[in-house]
Amino acid sequence: MKKLFMLSTLACVAMGVQAQSSVTLFGVVDNAVQNVRGAGNGHVTRLVQGANASSRLGFRGTEDLGGGMSASFWIEAGVNTDSGAGAATNTNNQASGVSPAAGGGGLTFNRRSTVSLAGNWGELRLGRDFAPSYLTLSAADPFGNVGVGSNFNLLGALGTSKGAQTGVRVSNSVGYLLPSNLGGIYGNVMYALGENASNAPGGTSSDGRHFGARIGWRAGAFDISGAHGRTTLAAGDYVQTDVAGSYDFGFVKLMAGVYREEVRAAAKGRADSWSVGATAPVGAGLLRASYTSTNQNAEAGNNDAAMIALGYVHNLSKRTAIYTTISLIDNKGASVLYNQGRAVASPGGNATGLDIGLRHAF
Amino acid sequence: MKKLFMLSTLACVAMGVQAQSSVTLFGVVDNAVQNVRGAGNGHVTRLVQGANASSRLGFRGTEDLGGGMSASFWIEAGVNTDSGAGAATNTNNQASGVSPAAGGGGLTFNRRSTVSLAGNWGELRLGRDFAPSYLTLSAADPFGNVGVGSNFNLLGALGTSKGAQTGVRVSNSVGYLLPSNLGGIYGNVMYALGENASNAPGGTSSDGRHFGARIGWRAGAFDISGAHGRTTLAAGDYVQTDVAGSYDFGFVKLMAGVYREEVRAAAKGRADSWSVGATAPVGAGLLRASYTSTNQNAEAGNNDAAMIALGYVHNLSKRTAIYTTISLIDNKGASVLYNQGRAVASPGGNATGLDIGLRHAF
Amino acid sequence: MKKLFMLSTLACVAMGVQAQSSVTLFGVVDNAVQNVRGAGNGHVTRLVQGANASSRLGFRGTEDLGGGMSASFWIEAGVNTDSGAGAATNTNNQASGVSPAAGGGGLTFNRRSTVSLAGNWGELRLGRDFAPSYLTLSAADPFGNVGVGSNFNLLGALGTSKGAQTGVRVSNSVGYLLPSNLGGIYGNVMYALGENASNAPGGTSSDGRHFGARIGWRAGAFDISGAHGRTTLAAGDYVQTDVAGSYDFGFVKLMAGVYREEVRAAAKGRADSWSVGATAPVGAGLLRASYTSTNQNAEAGNNDAAMIALGYVHNLSKRTAIYTTISLIDNKGASVLYNQGRAVASPGGNATGLDIGLRHAF
Repeated sequence: MKKLFMLSTLACVAMGVQAQSSVTLFGVVDNAVQNVRGAGNGHVTRLVQGANASSRLGFRGTEDLGGGMSASFWIEAGVNTDSGAGAATNTNNQASGVSPAAGGGGLTFNRRSTVSLAGNWGELRLGRDFAPSYLTLSAADPFGNVGVGSNFNLLGALGTSKGAQTGVRVSNSVGYLLPSNLGGIYGNVMYALGENASNAPGGTSSDGRHFGARIGWRAGAFDISGAHGRTTLAAGDYVQTDVAGSYDFGFVKLMAGVYREEVRAAAKGRADSWSVGATAPVGAGLLRASYTSTNQNAEAGNNDAAMIALGYVHNLSKRTAIYTTISLIDNKGASVLYNQGRAVASPGGNATGLDIGLRHAF
Repeated sequence: MKKLFMLSTLACVAMGVQAQSSVTLFGVVDNAVQNVRGAGNGHVTRLVQGANASSRLGFRGTEDLGGGMSASFWIEAGVNTDSGAGAATNTNNQASGVSPAAGGGGLTFNRRSTVSLAGNWGELRLGRDFAPSYLTLSAADPFGNVGVGSNFNLLGALGTSKGAQTGVRVSNSVGYLLPSNLGGIYGNVMYALGENASNAPGGTSSDGRHFGARIGWRAGAFDISGAHGRTTLAAGDYVQTDVAGSYDFGFVKLMAGVYREEVRAAAKGRADSWSVGATAPVGAGLLRASYTSTNQNAEAGNNDAAMIALGYVHNLSKRTAIYTTISLIDNKGASVLYNQGRAVASPGGNATGLDIGLRHAF
Repeated sequence: MKKLFMLSTLACVAMGVQAQSSVTLFGVVDNAVQNVRGAGNGHVTRLVQGANASSRLGFRGTEDLGGGMSASFWIEAGVNTDSGAGAATNTNNQASGVSPAAGGGGLTFNRRSTVSLAGNWGELRLGRDFAPSYLTLSAADPFGNVGVGSNFNLLGALGTSKGAQTGVRVSNSVGYLLPSNLGGIYGNVMYALGENASNAPGGTSSDGRHFGARIGWRAGAFDISGAHGRTTLAAGDYVQTDVAGSYDFGFVKLMAGVYREEVRAAAKGRADSWSVGATAPVGAGLLRASYTSTNQNAEAGNNDAAMIALGYVHNLSKRTAIYTTISLIDNKGASVLYNQGRAVASPGGNATGLDIGLRHAF
């Protein structure tokens, strides 16, 4: 999605050292007109960022240390490019750590903030990064987990409703990633700290601690992975377990996944979900479609739903596209939990969303 | 004001693609010692940013899409370079949308945050940008609407006192700009969303919606434009209507404008203003002077005033200058509304301001 | 610590102007696993930023104005790279000026934000910068005043406990720096504004005003400096007076300093401290050690302590290192004031700290 730019060091003067001394500045500006509607609750038309690819500004670079070793950094900030505001991060993987506290405003490197040491043994990575479980959760979504068609509208709803902070990214993490030379096998493990004191009250000393692992296999047109993540919380651990895969036939790419989301409180809430999706190139464009279904157990509240999403991306270049997406969420039973941004007020009511936008990467 | 810098992509290696893959990093750091004094209320001496040109950091770029089409982005953050703090933006064009809520702190791309698609038919631009009416309001101010000499001290006072958020920039906008090949005719229209729900209480569903339009003509030394902007607010629409022009005789450039600012509440407050200004090059320097007068109707409170401002900018290069400005605001009748940053406490009292600063653009 | 990168302007196209039109993008990403323990209060294990060098992102540049003159800018933001959050700055050098108010979140250029004009007469610098007294306070710390070994754990504790905001950096400053051609003599003076009104209540009109001065001499392996800083506060001026020096024998560099910290309230609190330190290169590595002692008078509370710190930095390149530091703070008498980040709860109890981290500069 991102075309990269080298900021050349002493360009033209010292070409020989260029490779080992570069910083890449990159980003996306993606704004869309969006209409979201929740049954019994009217609708909102708004300008949003990132309905095709999240708007961002980032800086990254790699240094060759010799002997197959390298060091690298990556800091990447979400930008609400509809208004210029920044996006919030989280400092301790708990609800108390949302920063800025008011829920956004100033720029933070919320999307990624890491330093790494890598070799043929793999990569050690420290900082804020994707939860391994999220990498699999999002792998089978033709809409890239953004915009009105994102299957995160359904797959992340249980955790979001319980205030979980680690469904997508995790701070204070120490991660290890497999090297890229394992015949298509890839994977990573992450351990992240909640940073509570050992004598924290009410058994909360481990709150915000996160462990995640992911393993996958990629071979030609085929790709599959499974992942698991657990965030320790005295009020009930938050657990995700996902398997997702895809096969690219060329004229169409098919993808599917199954997902389990759990809150292990006294009442062990659980949501079991699955999704299927497809993308198909059509000239300079790309058709996208998905169907997602989620079913909660009684402890979670029996909030079931299904979502269908359709979209088209018209590429003006590799970096620039215009696009549109529509989606319909069917809340089952008395559920009002699921929507694209406008809450549903009528029990069992539908929610709809429409995006029309312009995305430019740099 | 800004000298631009190309961050070359694969510089020297792939010169042929350089034009289509560049990001420009740009900015201004301008700090000044400022003394502001309000009658009956003492004075303050402080270091301020942007008394000649607003301090900022920005990133922008353009991609050639072929066939006369191009895509571009522009994200630009205000920086309070006296302390390093960021500047606030607004997420919904209403008083509730100031972000960060506390009125500043973290960096935001408050000055501009847009993605564009352009062709010989003009430009479509999405995001946060100048209100069209502001472009004309500021066109005849020799002080560029910043520092103690800014005529916005008078021209924006009615809206500011009523909490209007759209006097300068507007978020969530969809804009169209005329192409540059119309024989000197230029102009743009903007429609921006307040992002309230259709069932918002108290008739506020349209609050923060903004419509603006501007048309102008530039020919040689001559430039004139007119603009209109209206922000919908249940408490009373905020409306600006401006005409401003300039003529550059070479040894002196003269400028003048007339401005109407309205708050269409039950009591239809209105301020009618005019300004004249001049700049004159003197060797490496530039003399600047302006006179501005504003008159409110009874519904707005009869707060009338006049301001005279004088300044000198000594250019050390195209990018760097030292400068000084003085201004006097004469509050008429019982007005205490107008000042350069230190409120007036004595009815009808004067306010004065002095800037001495250093501006560097990059 | 930082390798610099030139963002070349029109690289290859206009080489002749390259020198006068460059922006340097620079930074550090340094994350460490840290364990801190306070007697009677348990311990915390966390990921922290900057235990070897503070994580940051900065932009700076210099313009040659001819005739020995130059203009420059420098904006540098602290980044909490363990979570991506920004670091707070201070807008008025008083406790009320912490920005963002909640104590961090959005990015600010808190580390430095200045514009300068320089010539063979020295440099005039406006904005936010280091307090001159801090430059000497930190000059004899082998740990660079960061991480669990920082002697600021002891030297800044009195001011920090009283809410002083100017122990390290000062906003709204006008500074003058001696030129670099004075035979090894260096120094600077700074005057900074608290920005209160002349009629501020309770005698606070001068609150936040800061004056600082520093003078030093560098000759070959020898370096010594003395500095003084005073921040005016109605509740009691905050004053620092420091002398520090070092001598580099090649196989070992020795450093020592004496420091006085005062709060001139009704009870004139004072802390007198001294430190000795050493660094020694060992192959690609660097050993570091320090001992610091502080003694408060009765008015300050008689909180005395000593700290010993040991560390090793293994350089993988000039820009990248892995490192570890341990430190022990011995609170004397009934003191609980001093720690590495985890408060001591047992009167006179010890505090310990451990860092293991990876630092990469760009």
